[in-house]
Amino acid sequence: MCRECPGKHCAAGAFLRRFLVKSENPAGAGINCEVITVSEFHMTECIRKTKERVPLTAAEIRALVQGVTDGSVPDYQTAAWLMAVCFNGLTDAETAQLTMSMRDSGQVMHWDMLDGPAADKHSTGGVGDKTTLILAPIAAACGIYMPKMSGRGLGHTGGTIDKLESIPGLTTALAPDEFRRLIQQVGCAVAMQTGNLAPADKKLYALRDVTETVNSIPLICASIMSKKLATGADYILLDVKVGSGAFMKNDADAAELARLMRAAAKADGRQCTAILTDMDRPLGRCIGNALEVREAIGVLRGDTENALGQLCITLAAELLRMSGRGDSDACLRMAKEAVSSGAALQKLAQMIEGQHGDPRVTEDLSLLPQARCSRVLCAESDGYIAAMDSEEIGRACVLLGAGRMTKEDSIDPGAGVVLAAECGDAVRTGDPLLTMYAGCEAQLDEAEQKLRKAVRISADMPAQQPLIHRIFSDRT
Amino acid sequence: MCRECPGKHCAAGAFLRRFLVKSENPAGAGINCEVITVSEFHMTECIRKTKERVPLTAAEIRALVQGVTDGSVPDYQTAAWLMAVCFNGLTDAETAQLTMSMRDSGQVMHWDMLDGPAADKHSTGGVGDKTTLILAPIAAACGIYMPKMSGRGLGHTGGTIDKLESIPGLTTALAPDEFRRLIQQVGCAVAMQTGNLAPADKKLYALRDVTETVNSIPLICASIMSKKLATGADYILLDVKVGSGAFMKNDADAAELARLMRAAAKADGRQCTAILTDMDRPLGRCIGNALEVREAIGVLRGDTENALGQLCITLAAELLRMSGRGDSDACLRMAKEAVSSGAALQKLAQMIEGQHGDPRVTEDLSLLPQARCSRVLCAESDGYIAAMDSEEIGRACVLLGAGRMTKEDSIDPGAGVVLAAECGDAVRTGDPLLTMYAGCEAQLDEAEQKLRKAVRISADMPAQQPLIHRIFSDRT
Repeated sequence: MCRECPGKHCAAGAFLRRFLVKSENPAGAGINCEVITVSEFHMTECIRKTKERVPLTAAEIRALVQGVTDGSVPDYQTAAWLMAVCFNGLTDAETAQLTMSMRDSGQVMHWDMLDGPAADKHSTGGVGDKTTLILAPIAAACGIYMPKMSGRGLGHTGGTIDKLESIPGLTTALAPDEFRRLIQQVGCAVAMQTGNLAPADKKLYALRDVTETVNSIPLICASIMSKKLATGADYILLDVKVGSGAFMKNDADAAELARLMRAAAKADGRQCTAILTDMDRPLGRCIGNALEVREAIGVLRGDTENALGQLCITLAAELLRMSGRGDSDACLRMAKEAVSSGAALQKLAQMIEGQHGDPRVTEDLSLLPQARCSRVLCAESDGYIAAMDSEEIGRACVLLGAGRMTKEDSIDPGAGVVLAAECGDAVRTGDPLLTMYAGCEAQLDEAEQKLRKAVRISADMPAQQPLIHRIFSDRT
Repeated sequence: MCRECPGKHCAAGAFLRRFLVKSENPAGAGINCEVITVSEFHMTECIRKTKERVPLTAAEIRALVQGVTDGSVPDYQTAAWLMAVCFNGLTDAETAQLTMSMRDSGQVMHWDMLDGPAADKHSTGGVGDKTTLILAPIAAACGIYMPKMSGRGLGHTGGTIDKLESIPGLTTALAPDEFRRLIQQVGCAVAMQTGNLAPADKKLYALRDVTETVNSIPLICASIMSKKLATGADYILLDVKVGSGAFMKNDADAAELARLMRAAAKADGRQCTAILTDMDRPLGRCIGNALEVREAIGVLRGDTENALGQLCITLAAELLRMSGRGDSDACLRMAKEAVSSGAALQKLAQMIEGQHGDPRVTEDLSLLPQARCSRVLCAESDGYIAAMDSEEIGRACVLLGAGRMTKEDSIDPGAGVVLAAECGDAVRTGDPLLTMYAGCEAQLDEAEQKLRKAVRISADMPAQQPLIHRIFSDRT
């Protein structure tokens, strides 16, 4: 009970708190805390304000995030606040401040020691999304450093960490020094995100997950961008997925998320481009960890005349453009050249080797793990492929063993699906639609039902949605 | 983690639960639990539904309340749900079910052993509200039993328990048997509410208090009515206060609360009348515990030609009418007769004696505790009393020592304010407006500033608001 401020907020658990703010620390990536002020902080007052659409001050948001991080704000108050945010949203300024306060809750990295620009790329999560495995080597081959922190997959969306770990011997548990050295030497590396990066996000996300407060655009923005900003890149490329397999189900929500994330990046002095891409269908033809590594290597070997290849070239070119390497056309040529010359594939091999994996997989795909069982699914009627529901296909892959239902589940690196056709293709009865891979026949049986529903064949040729819906950059 | 139902709700803490439902127990007032079903209960699903305005099923509400009561639903999920209720409300059916599930979370009393009707009265809380002290003896004198459970005051509103406990020797900590015996012998008694009465409300209210989720009309309804229904009266009279000193600041909100409370009572087979009364000004002329007992005794001695007296007679007549004692006019005569004959005052004396207090206070007011210091506040200009802000007067009384800021505070039974004039009265400079009573001069100084602001004098005669705004009964 706080005796300094009697009144109704006392009964409501008001407390005096000193709050800490991380200083910008030019000397290294460690955490520097200093007590900058002693302020009266009432979590109930924050809840009330958000509930009544009164914007919180920067100091209130800093104290709130600090309280969540150190546990002095109880979960039930945080949960009530999160729900109020779901209903009323936050202003752009509040969202940017929340993002930066969450960034400052843990380690903030920097890359001043590099002799070129540091860039980062983030995908909001999709099915068959292996762009990082392709984009990072292309960027590195063009002289852009890509220090990438990533997470594991959960539910129907895969994670880059799981994909990379399907490569024999490869580890993503890199010590900070090792990660830094790899970036300096190779230009790209992918490390598992540690709890020290934006720990406030870890706490808030765990609470949002169990209180139905995940689907708030300002909260999603702060969650993603706090980690991106903490990773320290100067240039940030955001791949915002839209459609059935994505968190954002429509263009309007995706555009709002893109706008907010770019504003938060700008508020922190970073350059940021957001690309809205289609997730009504899976990205590429392979879904499943080793299968996706195989497809990514294929693109880097020169197989770029497809949607996946074109998207990766576009993303790489945009990164080059952002970091001032020339106009769009020149950057596009540079990105293509990095693939056709084999320089990007070499970068991937170097990265794999640096992360203790077997680099020969880039030359010999049979070194990748393979599932014990497979089954081909064929068309049961003539017509056009009208839909390939990526969320359903993602869920089927979880049943095949390629993904996790809960964080504790283990995965089968060889499991997954390879599509034999794409949306819009004409098929005849008996034509192969896809191949399933799993550890046992029972898994194939279970997934087959889901996949039958996911692929829809119709008599009419469907309208085709472009892969890239929209680009939000400083040019546009 | 629940392995029986894998999927996204697992990560969200889903669990299988057996839930208990209290049976109607004709044999006594004890708790009878039986396991009626084994049901899958997902608190996240309840949160999601309320967030999306999908009504919860009766089984979900029962399980939710049971989970809150036994602690198996974590506070952070309850807090998120409460906030969703604040934004989206509940349907009437959900509100009634919530009320009854909360009632069933603890002891449910019954009064079948009485030879007459059992009635209860509840005020939503006001400043200077001593109606229970007047109404209960009148009703008892007319043959209606009034077993009243009450709470302490907090903040600017007083509590009946504190008022009664200002009577020397009186206790409200009555054992269930003693309470029952007193009701049978005297007809009325006021006992302190125990934790065993609707414990779900105790838990929910504590959480609402610290998560800014108090001001939701369905939640207020369930909180009040769960306790009223658990007290077991057949007839319930609700005094819904409207105005600056009340929780309901306007007639629309008060009417909605009255409607919901009556619907919940009806769903449980009780008869219920709700009276909306004015709380822009204090009720009566005395505010403060012993001061209010003094005023109540005055009314029972025959001083009924004032707003307080008229309200109490009206309330008593409505209770008589509800329980079938005659038409409105006959009931009004009966209530007046109970006062003029001295029967009601005698009932008060018997009740005080039954609760171990000194019954002579009904004859000798000087036996009531008195404050050490007092000061008269006089008008500083000529004019009419345009406003007596009851919330501000209530807060001033807290400063004088008559109320509590926090639950742990002790109170000064003699402290408070006695108004010398009422709204609409003409006053001249130097005329007394009110007298303050407190334990020390410093308290008088502090309260004086607040009281100066609370009483507004204007040149024009103000429009007078009637004390009773509206009556919702089965007649209307």
